[in-house]
Amino acid sequence: MRVAYHEELTSIRDGPVEMAHLVGSAMGRATSALLNADLQLAESVLSADARVDNLQRDLENRAVTVLARQQPVATELRVVVTSLRMSADLERGGDLAQHVAKLARLRYPEHAVPHDLRRTILEMGQLAQRLMAQAAEVLFTQDVAAALQLEKDDDRMDELHRMTFQHLMDERWQHHVETAVDVTLAGRYCERFADHAVSVARGLVYLVTGERADELITEPPASA
Amino acid sequence: MRVAYHEELTSIRDGPVEMAHLVGSAMGRATSALLNADLQLAESVLSADARVDNLQRDLENRAVTVLARQQPVATELRVVVTSLRMSADLERGGDLAQHVAKLARLRYPEHAVPHDLRRTILEMGQLAQRLMAQAAEVLFTQDVAAALQLEKDDDRMDELHRMTFQHLMDERWQHHVETAVDVTLAGRYCERFADHAVSVARGLVYLVTGERADELITEPPASA
Repeated sequence: MRVAYHEELTSIRDGPVEMAHLVGSAMGRATSALLNADLQLAESVLSADARVDNLQRDLENRAVTVLARQQPVATELRVVVTSLRMSADLERGGDLAQHVAKLARLRYPEHAVPHDLRRTILEMGQLAQRLMAQAAEVLFTQDVAAALQLEKDDDRMDELHRMTFQHLMDERWQHHVETAVDVTLAGRYCERFADHAVSVARGLVYLVTGERADELITEPPASA
Repeated sequence: MRVAYHEELTSIRDGPVEMAHLVGSAMGRATSALLNADLQLAESVLSADARVDNLQRDLENRAVTVLARQQPVATELRVVVTSLRMSADLERGGDLAQHVAKLARLRYPEHAVPHDLRRTILEMGQLAQRLMAQAAEVLFTQDVAAALQLEKDDDRMDELHRMTFQHLMDERWQHHVETAVDVTLAGRYCERFADHAVSVARGLVYLVTGERADELITEPPASA
């Protein structure tokens, strides 16, 4: 019974790692689909999200079952509670990757992103993907300092997001308003996706330390 | 001990009701601030959100403590797990109301929303507020049919959201791209806020029935 319980706990702890890999990959592919007006790739992102939703539902059900039957305490309780929270963040990350893919599909065969903004949107999409990969990595390594580092790496996303607005509002910018709407939304999706990666990393900090990341982040992490 | 436990459970169950009232009111005031370029009102929304964040943190801490010490099962476990989920939705709703208030502040003393889109954005903001009030109401009454109704009422939000895009992309629309960006974001904030209200109502369905709302919604609710 205890062996089965510990196997179940390990599987609940590892569920978010698999989800993070899937949604990170989805965001990378959605960004490619958007920038290359690749309808087939966009459709593949849309159809792949069902797997993320199923993983989340399955993880939630197992977490609630473990809470009811095994009544974990201390670290084991934190594993279950943080996995529940992370799975919600990751499911939402999957939705945001879908939104990017839907923008690509909506404008196909046109390109939603104009040439002069390609580089910025590409960097945002790739950074979003990389932050999620880092989140998956820290879930696996349980490295608190690396988890806290994600908050800093996310600053670049905020900077890129501001750059898109500055670019759109430049007097010399001469595109149609439809393009402004698309770029505004694509930027917002990438930025929110990155927030969910940061939130997952914060969950890892809580899991390992029992402290909230925002209570630790006032001082630089020990290994920084 | 059991009396204290049941009082704590009641308080964990009622926490989201108070949060829903606060964030619904915040969205209503943020919409007014946005449409009337009312800086003072915008600032009041921004400063009020700390209370929502504190309520969420407090609720989370109490929920985890109850899980650890009292090891609830069955309905009582569902109360704790759904309150955790709802509090995350509601905290995010508070952030979205803040985003609307920040748009008002960013453009002050100008109006972020042009005259021809005032009516649509007003309806979106008011609908967002009303859906959150309905969510608070169903949490209190535990009325499953009313909770499922929120999903249908949210359809109007999607319709209004589409209308803003159609309006922005109309060839005759002659505003600056900055206005298109602002309206795109304001619309997105209202729509996401409404999604969180719907998510809270879904949580109530799970709390009362033990079934997910999406498993019940394929058939019309009994009292509809």
